[in-house]
Amino acid sequence: MKDAMKAHIKITLKNGVLDPQGKAIEGAVKGLGITGVGDVRQGKYIEVDLAESDPAKAKAIVEQMCKDLLANTVIENYSYEIG
Amino acid sequence: MKDAMKAHIKITLKNGVLDPQGKAIEGAVKGLGITGVGDVRQGKYIEVDLAESDPAKAKAIVEQMCKDLLANTVIENYSYEIG
Repeated sequence: MKDAMKAHIKITLKNGVLDPQGKAIEGAVKGLGITGVGDVRQGKYIEVDLAESDPAKAKAIVEQMCKDLLANTVIENYSYEIG
Repeated sequence: MKDAMKAHIKITLKNGVLDPQGKAIEGAVKGLGITGVGDVRQGKYIEVDLAESDPAKAKAIVEQMCKDLLANTVIENYSYEIG
């Protein structure tokens, strides 16, 4: 394996898209008696090891993974950091 | 609502804990013909609005949420940023 890079990908629901998991967490937080918590939104976090030392190529791989596989771009946004 | 803060929480499986979702992504990536991708680990990403302007109190709330509700600390790690 060449000098490895690691991508940290966050996938979140777009604003306005209903998030039942987030609402369930909100309800559970209130049930636990924790105050001061407002809106909760749940997304996915994915760590990917890349066998690629060229930042531009690494970015292209991650972009393709997000678009073609990981995120449903109709209802989800994605963002990532590579390092 | 007071000056709101927002917490960004990441929950990841500990090293050594089997991650079937990550393995499924790895397989799908290979199926798509994307090369240069190694190990994939999937976790959760949670955004929380906090009705709290005191950073110390905000941290205490998030810490309690993570420990008591969001993360299973036997098999998962959590980390967060508040801002």
